[in-house]
Amino acid sequence: MRVAIQGSHGSFSEAAARRRWPDLEALPCRDVKDVVVAVREGRADAGCLPIENSLIGSVTTTYDLLHEAFGDGALRLTHEVLYPVHHTLMAMPGATVSGIRRVLSHPVALGQCRIWLSEHLPDAELVSAWDTAGSAEVVAQERDPALAAIAARPAADVHCLVPLAERIEDDPTNQTRFLTFTRADAPDLRGSTAARFKTSLIVLVDHKPGMLALTLQAFGARGVNLMALQSRPERSAPWTYRFYVDVEGSASDPRVAEALEEIEALANQLIVLDSYDAWTEGSQLSAPV
Amino acid sequence: MRVAIQGSHGSFSEAAARRRWPDLEALPCRDVKDVVVAVREGRADAGCLPIENSLIGSVTTTYDLLHEAFGDGALRLTHEVLYPVHHTLMAMPGATVSGIRRVLSHPVALGQCRIWLSEHLPDAELVSAWDTAGSAEVVAQERDPALAAIAARPAADVHCLVPLAERIEDDPTNQTRFLTFTRADAPDLRGSTAARFKTSLIVLVDHKPGMLALTLQAFGARGVNLMALQSRPERSAPWTYRFYVDVEGSASDPRVAEALEEIEALANQLIVLDSYDAWTEGSQLSAPV
Repeated sequence: MRVAIQGSHGSFSEAAARRRWPDLEALPCRDVKDVVVAVREGRADAGCLPIENSLIGSVTTTYDLLHEAFGDGALRLTHEVLYPVHHTLMAMPGATVSGIRRVLSHPVALGQCRIWLSEHLPDAELVSAWDTAGSAEVVAQERDPALAAIAARPAADVHCLVPLAERIEDDPTNQTRFLTFTRADAPDLRGSTAARFKTSLIVLVDHKPGMLALTLQAFGARGVNLMALQSRPERSAPWTYRFYVDVEGSASDPRVAEALEEIEALANQLIVLDSYDAWTEGSQLSAPV
Repeated sequence: MRVAIQGSHGSFSEAAARRRWPDLEALPCRDVKDVVVAVREGRADAGCLPIENSLIGSVTTTYDLLHEAFGDGALRLTHEVLYPVHHTLMAMPGATVSGIRRVLSHPVALGQCRIWLSEHLPDAELVSAWDTAGSAEVVAQERDPALAAIAARPAADVHCLVPLAERIEDDPTNQTRFLTFTRADAPDLRGSTAARFKTSLIVLVDHKPGMLALTLQAFGARGVNLMALQSRPERSAPWTYRFYVDVEGSASDPRVAEALEEIEALANQLIVLDSYDAWTEGSQLSAPV
């Protein structure tokens, strides 16, 4: 199984994809758009996209490409994956925490380790980089024992670095939600481990009082749980919005299907992206992290 | 009038604040949190916060501090300001477009000028910086005629640079929405130019089917327009959300007041941030941009 991931080898995206496919071969991609293109063009069997972090919120670059990527039916969402974001400080073999002068990582990761850094490395220079696993790569290239990276634990193994300190994040509940996908003409991987499904859709409503409430009420009235709601700007018309909605259940569930039919008649536009396996405790295939 | 702004002198925040207060004296602040602190501590009479861009979406760092900043009643939201984001390429006097080798700006601004850059400076190195006006400052300090910055037009005057090309953004409809505020014990500046009001609130709903729809329906049933809806993660409990809602009208408008009363009874928690002057065509005080 070849899986396109965002970031370098050892990234959080790769670790998340490995929870579904432990033996995957990763195809590193620069950004989320490249992940989609790699699967569309057949260079990868599946892709893994970060969609939301429990502290930071939505990954808007992923949201903004969902319509283009999944609106035409050529790709199929397969699984949701939850991955706990534990940060590791890593450096060259022989390096020590007290000898670190510069720490390299994505600015979000640096911000998430503020307490540990201020206690253990108050004088180190914090340097912003494009991604976390890429920072580990830079440390391995520069071979400077005073330089460290903050990244996911697997990045240390990939780049032959040693972990100097693990779980250094301020908030240990930090998690990221990912979506995996394949081409629609590939074998359907859904349902194998699913206790429940989710359906993702995009709704455009007219700018009339109550239209969004009526749309959401179509689910509420049928007891269908709303799992996420994200508004994103409609780029073609300033200060109008498209709403990305996740609901519990498959689009073939009669209650969901009825609600979608009602919304179809109410909304300006309804795009059902896909139904896929929601993450549950039981859907974890590989070892706990 | 001393106004705390985000970024260096000549920033988009300063230009936006000037649409309300043309003769303001700007107090540059590093980030949105510092803007709030400057007003709270009395170092500035007012503050100006970017809240949303028509292409990029919400400024989540601003949303995440709204509760803390405005939830205790010590500050008062006064006005909404819309500012068109036109980008200018600026460099040292004597520099020419063909001589530019490096372009410095915030990564979002670089991304918004992709078409112009690929046509006119296909070989230039694009360098990410902390903010746009700060990039102009760097160009003025380095005095290198091969270095240019992309920033708001006023940043060129502030830093004695020359505009090499104006309105180089891909999408000329690009706008940013700002909110201005004062201390609550300062004279009330609202209402002077307002044709209409907005009210901003935060709602936490129980995770039961239909709860959010019922909440929004409280406004819809009374013909109160929903102007924006932004979900943000509830950091203390992964995968739960708080919803930031903007509605048309003041909280003292009977329809809005009734809706708020109904929501108070429905929601887990309701925080009314404030009512303030909405931006209208007539609320522009200074010269068109």
